[in-house]
Amino acid sequence: MANMAKPYVIGIDMGGTNTAFGIVDARGNVIASDSIKTGKHSDINDYIDELYTEITRIVEANDVAGKINGIGIGAPNANYYTGIIEDGVNLPWPTPIPLADLITKKFGIPCVITNDANAAAIGEMTYGVARGMKDFIMITLGTGVGSGIVINGQMVYGHDGFAGELGHVVMKRNNGRMCGCGRTGCLEAYCSATGVARTAREFLDIRPDESKLRELDADKITSKDVYDCAMAGDKLAKEIFEYTGTILGEALADFTTFSSPEAFVLFGGLTKSGELIMKPVRDAFEKNVMKVFKGKVKILISELKESDAAVLGASALGWEVKE
Amino acid sequence: MANMAKPYVIGIDMGGTNTAFGIVDARGNVIASDSIKTGKHSDINDYIDELYTEITRIVEANDVAGKINGIGIGAPNANYYTGIIEDGVNLPWPTPIPLADLITKKFGIPCVITNDANAAAIGEMTYGVARGMKDFIMITLGTGVGSGIVINGQMVYGHDGFAGELGHVVMKRNNGRMCGCGRTGCLEAYCSATGVARTAREFLDIRPDESKLRELDADKITSKDVYDCAMAGDKLAKEIFEYTGTILGEALADFTTFSSPEAFVLFGGLTKSGELIMKPVRDAFEKNVMKVFKGKVKILISELKESDAAVLGASALGWEVKE
Repeated sequence: MANMAKPYVIGIDMGGTNTAFGIVDARGNVIASDSIKTGKHSDINDYIDELYTEITRIVEANDVAGKINGIGIGAPNANYYTGIIEDGVNLPWPTPIPLADLITKKFGIPCVITNDANAAAIGEMTYGVARGMKDFIMITLGTGVGSGIVINGQMVYGHDGFAGELGHVVMKRNNGRMCGCGRTGCLEAYCSATGVARTAREFLDIRPDESKLRELDADKITSKDVYDCAMAGDKLAKEIFEYTGTILGEALADFTTFSSPEAFVLFGGLTKSGELIMKPVRDAFEKNVMKVFKGKVKILISELKESDAAVLGASALGWEVKE
Repeated sequence: MANMAKPYVIGIDMGGTNTAFGIVDARGNVIASDSIKTGKHSDINDYIDELYTEITRIVEANDVAGKINGIGIGAPNANYYTGIIEDGVNLPWPTPIPLADLITKKFGIPCVITNDANAAAIGEMTYGVARGMKDFIMITLGTGVGSGIVINGQMVYGHDGFAGELGHVVMKRNNGRMCGCGRTGCLEAYCSATGVARTAREFLDIRPDESKLRELDADKITSKDVYDCAMAGDKLAKEIFEYTGTILGEALADFTTFSSPEAFVLFGGLTKSGELIMKPVRDAFEKNVMKVFKGKVKILISELKESDAAVLGASALGWEVKE
């Protein structure tokens, strides 16, 4: 039986708050899954111990011990080539973290990692709306803005494993907002969930319009609050989504000049706002994109459940491991 | 002898002014070359007739008739997939032009086309400073700004064959200059040779500084004039290059977030300005690029002669043809 793949893989989606994991078969069925709190442990080794305990529990409960081909992990700033999390801004542990090595040693199973947005793109390509597409760009709109780029059917990792940081393309070159990356004006500072909340605070500060948002504590406004107000007909809240979607549409128009994708697949919390954000995204895209691309690029919303896409995408890496 | 490649290819670099062509062997030696004026014929068929006559002349003079495997052409806005020039802004003929078909029929030899910047990138990868690189981006700084992107050792053509239009990424979102593409604020409107001349006219108009450039007819200033003045110590002329290089460096910093290339290879007339433009490009790049990429990306100038890179690159497509 040497050199034959074992029949299961494990996918782990490591987020700043939760870590979801699952056992996946060769057809992409998640046969068991669960999650733990990422931030519970101040020592990375304790975190890995808990992950080991919990995954071993579901592995044994499903009678697949010894049948795991590999472990794939999607994690913030994880480098596919080195197996290291090199600058994990939203994680509770000091970086760099040699995650692939730590996991391989603890589990005795080979491990491949990539950043969470790349993992989501792989999930989308394998099981989602990007099935069959050879050229698409995944944009994850969560606490931050991430991206996973597929060209000629391959993930783009770049020269050093850090390609696909489209959340940090500069959209406002003058007077841009501070971004978590230490620079200013990045797409992420405007089009993430936190970006929407920042826009709300700015609009409330500089505009005289009436708005239900004024009834809330400005410092605690979330993108969900803005959504709720917009759905209740609040004009200013709607304009906040228009502002956000317009910047995103302008960005997608620029990204198109790079790889001319068949589609953008949007993913993550903000996409739940539906047409509130999608209409301005599409309008700004078609208004700003080069003539040669007009009407040719689809802008889609992921159909996968958020947790599934990341776990499935990460698990697909479990087939790529080398012994 | 069926299915064996014939030992020579023809490369054609079709520019707005000149069309250069050459016979190339499998080792990349240009064994003969010449050029004709692109704009001489108002009918595309007359142009192709002249090209046929001239190429047949050097083919027969070098005794390689019947030994040509294929013809590769680099041309503005040429689509690799369709063989059509779909929107040839700087050409004297109406578009679309089914160039690959016209050439194949006239010559009786299969033909593949791509845009001129992609052809230059292929030339650079095969024979230039990008030899051995799997991830790099070619930026051509001529009358316009073009680009050819290589990822995982492959040209990026995108979903529809039009990838790599980085000259049309928006660098000035408010109050940007009109671009030839009909949009405003594009990189090309600032960092092409014509962009440098426009910057010169703007600077002369709005700034009070003394400058040798004031001795020239403002409407006729070229990037070469700005270069000559800068080399003669003119402070305003130097600042024009700083302005240009800074915008280009900011753009390259953004492009890096996409594919994390090992290098950018700059090519074309403006690179002859050497450190006048390269220093601000490098400075702005390192100042603006994400921390994870700092100090890791080379910014190189092509070492190939301008005509050679394009002809050689185009010729390499002659090995890809299908009978």
